[in-house]
Amino acid sequence: MTHQEEIMSTAIDYRLISTDDHIIEPPDVWEGRLEKKFQDRAPHVIVNNDMDYWSFEEKQSPNIGLSVMAGRSFEEYTTDPVRFSGMRKGCYDPKERLLDMDRDGIEVSALFPSVPGMAGTLFSEAEDKSLALRCLETYNDWLSDTWCAADPNRFIGQMILPIWDLDLAIKELQRGLGLGHKALSFPNAPESLGLPNIGDEHWDPLWDAVEEAGIPVSMHIASGSMRDSPMPLAVAAGTPAEVFVTVAPSSNFISVATLLWSGVLVRHPKLRFLSVEGGVGWLGYLVQRADEVYMKHRHWTKTKLKEPPSFYFKRQVFANFLDDAVGLTTRHHIGVENIMFEVDYPHSDTTFPNSQELVAKRFKDVPADETRLIVRDNAIKFFGLDLQ
Amino acid sequence: MTHQEEIMSTAIDYRLISTDDHIIEPPDVWEGRLEKKFQDRAPHVIVNNDMDYWSFEEKQSPNIGLSVMAGRSFEEYTTDPVRFSGMRKGCYDPKERLLDMDRDGIEVSALFPSVPGMAGTLFSEAEDKSLALRCLETYNDWLSDTWCAADPNRFIGQMILPIWDLDLAIKELQRGLGLGHKALSFPNAPESLGLPNIGDEHWDPLWDAVEEAGIPVSMHIASGSMRDSPMPLAVAAGTPAEVFVTVAPSSNFISVATLLWSGVLVRHPKLRFLSVEGGVGWLGYLVQRADEVYMKHRHWTKTKLKEPPSFYFKRQVFANFLDDAVGLTTRHHIGVENIMFEVDYPHSDTTFPNSQELVAKRFKDVPADETRLIVRDNAIKFFGLDLQ
Ligand SMILES: [Mn+2]
Ligand SMILES: [Mn+2]
Ligand SMILES: [Mn+2]
Ligand SMILES: [Mn+2]
Repeated sequence: MTHQEEIMSTAIDYRLISTDDHIIEPPDVWEGRLEKKFQDRAPHVIVNNDMDYWSFEEKQSPNIGLSVMAGRSFEEYTTDPVRFSGMRKGCYDPKERLLDMDRDGIEVSALFPSVPGMAGTLFSEAEDKSLALRCLETYNDWLSDTWCAADPNRFIGQMILPIWDLDLAIKELQRGLGLGHKALSFPNAPESLGLPNIGDEHWDPLWDAVEEAGIPVSMHIASGSMRDSPMPLAVAAGTPAEVFVTVAPSSNFISVATLLWSGVLVRHPKLRFLSVEGGVGWLGYLVQRADEVYMKHRHWTKTKLKEPPSFYFKRQVFANFLDDAVGLTTRHHIGVENIMFEVDYPHSDTTFPNSQELVAKRFKDVPADETRLIVRDNAIKFFGLDLQ
Repeated sequence: MTHQEEIMSTAIDYRLISTDDHIIEPPDVWEGRLEKKFQDRAPHVIVNNDMDYWSFEEKQSPNIGLSVMAGRSFEEYTTDPVRFSGMRKGCYDPKERLLDMDRDGIEVSALFPSVPGMAGTLFSEAEDKSLALRCLETYNDWLSDTWCAADPNRFIGQMILPIWDLDLAIKELQRGLGLGHKALSFPNAPESLGLPNIGDEHWDPLWDAVEEAGIPVSMHIASGSMRDSPMPLAVAAGTPAEVFVTVAPSSNFISVATLLWSGVLVRHPKLRFLSVEGGVGWLGYLVQRADEVYMKHRHWTKTKLKEPPSFYFKRQVFANFLDDAVGLTTRHHIGVENIMFEVDYPHSDTTFPNSQELVAKRFKDVPADETRLIVRDNAIKFFGLDLQ
């Protein structure tokens, strides 16, 4: 057998579900949707020295190369800005995205924003919160009536919320459900925005509403503030760029540990979180370590937990990965029903257009029933999809 | 078979080597060893309200309960200070320590200081650097002529250095070698002391000397400054204490990533580092992730590496663990020759007095030759011990 035949002979006979992809917003997201006093101040694209920049309040930001590398060779990877005209169309056009999903054997894709920040933090950090709220609502509208509308069965809309105000957040959650959104994108490190951490009781009223709605919460790495990253000191102190890139995924270690210990999963037994783009090869260690800490240290800490952390993890915490042989080796330490596949289109780490081949190769020694759970069925259950 | 019989039937027939234990210094370490102008200002114990405190410059610090829990039940674990009279004698008395090592089946123990900080950072942060230097030298003397002298074949002395001044550090390294020390304890996060990070070229002259001496470098978790910990923001922001305890070991993730990417292992091919008390269950993921970053990102980062990070890891980076089933599951991703056992006597996470039972249980499914490497032979090679 050639390498190609070998891959095909073991290929899976159903399509994958990607639990993490990114919309690179086209320039017209906010166009013609806001009242006059806000329209000109909504995020919009300006051209400067032959480069496209998103402009909002005082900020001008281009699309960075590493965010739009789908289909590029590693040699072409760059941090330089890229214009819309230089991107693969699947980045910003939902119909083209569906074609790329077909090419890659992906049936369904869960989506994160880019311009608003992966959990809407651009608006949480805005000066004018009236403007920010309208821009955020408009984003949720556009996500539903334009992007997801291109194929509501294949795109999972994940709404963003005005988390700077709990009442507004709960109101927008209800509105977002009405728009058909199936999940919520929430910052992995709200403390980076000066807000309480993800396990704090502050969020309880929101989690009550999320629990009642029955939708899950996606917690993407680096979805907190860009101003004040939760990355440790060492990364900032003159270390090579590769240290940041290497460490960035597992920064969700802290977020998951905070979920496990804060008691939020005890107080909200139906709330479910997905650690997104963090990989899972470190997760078995984290759950094991948390149980060890529970065994040895719960007396002096006066823990809020009634059961070991692994009990709550198993019930309510999930995590996804792109390419993670170590994660698969440790899958029984984590729980085969707690891990899912992702493609991360069109970011630099994306598995596109080789997702099917990669899965066939990496899952070679994983039983078929476990493979199917990880690359498809767990996501169907997690997002409540109407699929077999 | 009873559980006990089962354990005994699989027990290993040789003694373990612990690559991480702690000296809780007795009150007389610095007594009668310094010149008159410094003697009264060296670290010394004062009693205040029936509690013992170490006093140095402006600081008074008691021994914290969690640091001296060897032999205690988990129910007794406490962060409250403990007097010398309330500690197990093996904490501060080398002859008693040897008896505890006998009880636990430990042949050899690699030692870290407590009062000076695990890598001597108390002195790096001192106001009076002339005083600090003499106190540091005196510590290395005492470690050799008193503690290690109790049995030079069973204690591995790890010297500390005046890293605030490279010339002084190299001079003290040479002196420490003359005292018989077999390794160097270096902070995992020197940037927390305002010094260059562990991979920075600043340290190259020291590493040249260490390489030539042929001794390894131990890099204990949390061995940087106590003032400015490298722990991520989230841990400080009102999260439960258990988050810190859960996250603390894997904080060496950053230190190891910095070693791998900085080029220090390329520039010093014989330099060897041991990640201490970090556990290893996250390490296979780190090495895998680093290789992925090398494959995908090395073109734009213009990496300093000539080979994938795993090449340098395999050759020069080692790590130890106490109780880590996930680490053993992933041992072939890490490298069976790169991991070692530790006891962490007398800290709260110590395996004492159950180290032999624990090893028999955890290594049940690990082949005998691999077990022996991990719990004994790798350490013999790493520290250059004269043992079979
Ligand atoms: Mn992503
Ligand atoms: Mn990404
Ligand atoms: Mn230790
Ligand atoms: Mn310890």
